[in-house]
Parts: sequence; C-alpha cells; structure tokens
Amino acid sequence: MDEQKKETMTATLEGRRSFLKIVGGAAAATGIAATGLSPEKASAQADPTAPAWPWTCAELDPNMAAEMGYTAYSQGGCCYGAFKGLVGQLAETQGYPFTLIPLDMMRYGAGGVVSWGSLCGTLNGAAAAINLVLPSSTANPLIDELMAWYSTTALPIYVPDGKETTTTSVSNSPLCHASVSKWCEASNLGVTSNERKERCARLVADVASKAAELINAQIQNAFVPENGPAAVIATCNTCHGSTGQNNVLSKMDCNSCHEPEDHPLPISGWQGM
Amino acid sequence: MDEQKKETMTATLEGRRSFLKIVGGAAAATGIAATGLSPEKASAQADPTAPAWPWTCAELDPNMAAEMGYTAYSQGGCCYGAFKGLVGQLAETQGYPFTLIPLDMMRYGAGGVVSWGSLCGTLNGAAAAINLVLPSSTANPLIDELMAWYSTTALPIYVPDGKETTTTSVSNSPLCHASVSKWCEASNLGVTSNERKERCARLVADVASKAAELINAQIQNAFVPENGPAAVIATCNTCHGSTGQNNVLSKMDCNSCHEPEDHPLPISGWQGM
Repeated sequence: MDEQKKETMTATLEGRRSFLKIVGGAAAATGIAATGLSPEKASAQADPTAPAWPWTCAELDPNMAAEMGYTAYSQGGCCYGAFKGLVGQLAETQGYPFTLIPLDMMRYGAGGVVSWGSLCGTLNGAAAAINLVLPSSTANPLIDELMAWYSTTALPIYVPDGKETTTTSVSNSPLCHASVSKWCEASNLGVTSNERKERCARLVADVASKAAELINAQIQNAFVPENGPAAVIATCNTCHGSTGQNNVLSKMDCNSCHEPEDHPLPISGWQGM
Repeated sequence: MDEQKKETMTATLEGRRSFLKIVGGAAAATGIAATGLSPEKASAQADPTAPAWPWTCAELDPNMAAEMGYTAYSQGGCCYGAFKGLVGQLAETQGYPFTLIPLDMMRYGAGGVVSWGSLCGTLNGAAAAINLVLPSSTANPLIDELMAWYSTTALPIYVPDGKETTTTSVSNSPLCHASVSKWCEASNLGVTSNERKERCARLVADVASKAAELINAQIQNAFVPENGPAAVIATCNTCHGSTGQNNVLSKMDCNSCHEPEDHPLPISGWQGM
C-alpha cells in the first residue's frame, strides 16, 4: 500500500472510531432507549461488545453435545454439527455471549472444507469450540488429544435411539478423505450412500461428546492425555525432524499417506497404509 | 440420555428462556439504562444479539488484508492471521457486528491444527471468514477457488516493505505438511528456520488478500472461477468415483499423497509425488 493510501485509511479509521466513541458516550449519558430506536437497533448503534477471549463456560453435557451434533449434521454438515453441539449448547444453556457467534459460519468445514477431503469437519468445528472457551495453553493439549483419539479409535461409537449399530473403522488420520475411505473399505458401502452419511452424522456426535468431556476435564483441572501421535513419527523424525533433514512438521501418522516402497531405505516401524 | 434427565434439562432450558424473555422485555419497556448498570453490563444483561447470518459486509481492502494478516502471524499463527486480515479488518472498518467475534478463537488452526500438519491454517481462517459474510451457495465456490488457487500457485507472492523476495513453491495440496515440506525442498531450508516462518507469514498475506478479492468479486456479482481441482482427479474417479468403486470423496490432487508404484494398474495421468 502506498503511503498516501495508508494515511487516508488511517484518517478514515480514526474518524470512524471517534464517531463510535461519541455515539457510545451519548448512549451512556442519556440511556440507550433515548435514541428512539428499537432495542435491536439501539443495541447495534451502541456497538455492544463481546467479553474478552477466552469466553468462560460452565461444564458441558456430553450427551447433549452428541444429540445436538448428530441432529445438526443434516442441517449444516459435520463441522457445523460439531460446533453446534458445543457452542450451540452453550448458547442454549448459558446464553450470552455464546448467542453472538453465528454457528452457520462453520458450514464451510463440511467434507474436509467444501468436500475437499482435507481436515475432518468434526475435528475442525470441535477444535474451534475448544479454543473459544480456553486459551491456547490449555486448548492445544485438548485438541492434540482429540486429534489423536479420533485417529486411533474405531468410530462411530454413538448409536441414536431406536437405530442399529453400524460398521466401525479406524482412520489412522485426522483427514476426511482417509477417514471416509477407510470406512467405505470396512463396510463395503459407497461414499454417496445414506449409510456413509449416517456414519458421519454419528462421528459428529462422537467428536462433540468427546470434546465436551475434554473441556469438562480441563475445567475440573483433571485432564490427563491418553492418546498421542503415532509412534512411527518418532522413527521418521530421526531423519526428517529438526535434528536431521528438518523438512517435516506434522503429527499425522506418516504411514497413512507414505508407502514404504517409495522410500530409499527400509525403515523399522514404517508399514505403509 | 434417559427420559427423566431429558425432561429436567428441557424444563431448565425453558425456564431460562422465559427468564431471558422477561429480562429482554423489561429492558425494552424501560430503556436499557434504567437497569442502573454501566452500559457494558446493561448490554450484557439484555443479551445483545448478533444479526442474522450471513453478516453483510462492504468490500474489503486486499492490501489491508495482506498487511494485517502478515503482522498477525507472529501474534497468533497462520489461521488467526488470515481470519484477522479479513474479520479483524471488518471490525476496524465497519465495527459491529464484526467486533463480536473473538479472533483468538482461530489460533487452534496454526500449523494445520496445533501443528498436526493437516489443513493449512491460512485456508482454514480465510474460509471461515468467507462463510461468515456469505451464504454457502456463494461462499463454497469462492472457497473452492481459494483452495485450488493455493494448491497450484507458486507462493509466497507477498513481499513486505523493505524486505527481499523469498523462495517460492507450489504445494499441490491444501495441507500444511505438504505445503511446508515442498517449500523446504525448494529452498533447502528447515521447517524450524526463521525463513520458513517468514514464508508462512507471507502466505497469510497472500491468502487473506486473495480471499478479500474473491469476496469483493462476489459482492460485485463478478466472480469467475479460474482454478479447479487437479485434472488427475477425474482420471482417478473413473474407478473411484460414484459410478465406480465409490470410495473416495476428495478434491485434493491424488498425486500429492498416492504413489503410482502402489497402484494395481498403471493409470494415465497419475504421476505420483
């Protein structure tokens, strides 16, 4: 940006901020209703603020997270569903400030971001919710645990009332494509089948419920990590880590994408897909 | 959840909602300031609401997105940075309601979600911002474009004032690990180097700026997609798509993970990494 443009923009922003300050001051002095606007408009006029991050919350109900998340899958996809099972739950049970976040913002995460098959949307939505209510110092270990648990656990676990169990599979990966394809292989059913969609809806329930349990454990100062990244990563990092070639930054199971046949050396512990 | 627990929870929620309705009604009737609280507390007490999603915005400044995003990388990582370059910019230039979203919620996306190397955080943060201001019907094509552009463009493009250009690389993937490792290979520099961190900070600028351009194009009804998923996907989908084995749902370049040596048949167009 050239200097003139920068100056104009700075002046505009400062002007806007002063204006808002004046409006806010007037509202404080006269009472917001004195603006003559409807409560909604008065509220907007006064620029209501959200509390400082992270937003404190009481313990969540893991069962409610599962049920809300499962139902929400059919409304807005996996990422939206997991986020709604947590933040939507808080909006219902605790109200403000959780009512301020538009849950629909998270629709993009469906199918590993608009069906690209990258990060599983349940993990994306749940991780955002965890980081909304906890600072990174405590959120990150919980998200690590959630990612590792997801990658190594036979899912789905959740069975909706009155329905049968379904085929389970272990993804070995936090990625949507790997997770879905592993389940297709195990179940012999297609990605476009209703059974696969039902499987993903149940994963929303599992991940939202697990995230609720992790948040609760943190609130109780009782969180103990039980799952870690795959052991093979340490083997690979003897060459690829920071003391070696220093060319990989990942906690995903190396075997979930890389095949041993492609590697110049036979490496102990590296088993391929 | 058993029936009794469900009933108790429903009763509690209904009680809370009635209470909030009463509080809201009282505030509307008497004016919020009549509660005798400070404006901030009065605002919280009255449960200020956010507008309906999606949140309308005016056009963004792509240069401001780049500069804010670049600077924010060192404060909260790549995902936070891209989100701040867009939503943080709107909070500065347009104020409410964009001031309501805690930008820090997006810190979790750093390094492909707390350094797992999955989805590149710049894409995650930018996609959330796009879906905050646009419904999925128009947001999804923009996110498709952003993901495809990122995967096929030599990045970083952005050069901060007074600094030198750096090595560029094409990721062939929206994943952090693939993107970073490709750059390490091209630059012969390590993932833990300051140069790699500088490269990722510049990617934040590139992705935030590109997302701002895409949102602007959509506001002008002038969006035309220029990038698509890799051509090899159509080849692979002749067997793996919905009319074949129906076991893959992905728009990522198949060659970015799968090696031709592992495939039972030689496939035209499949080149491996």
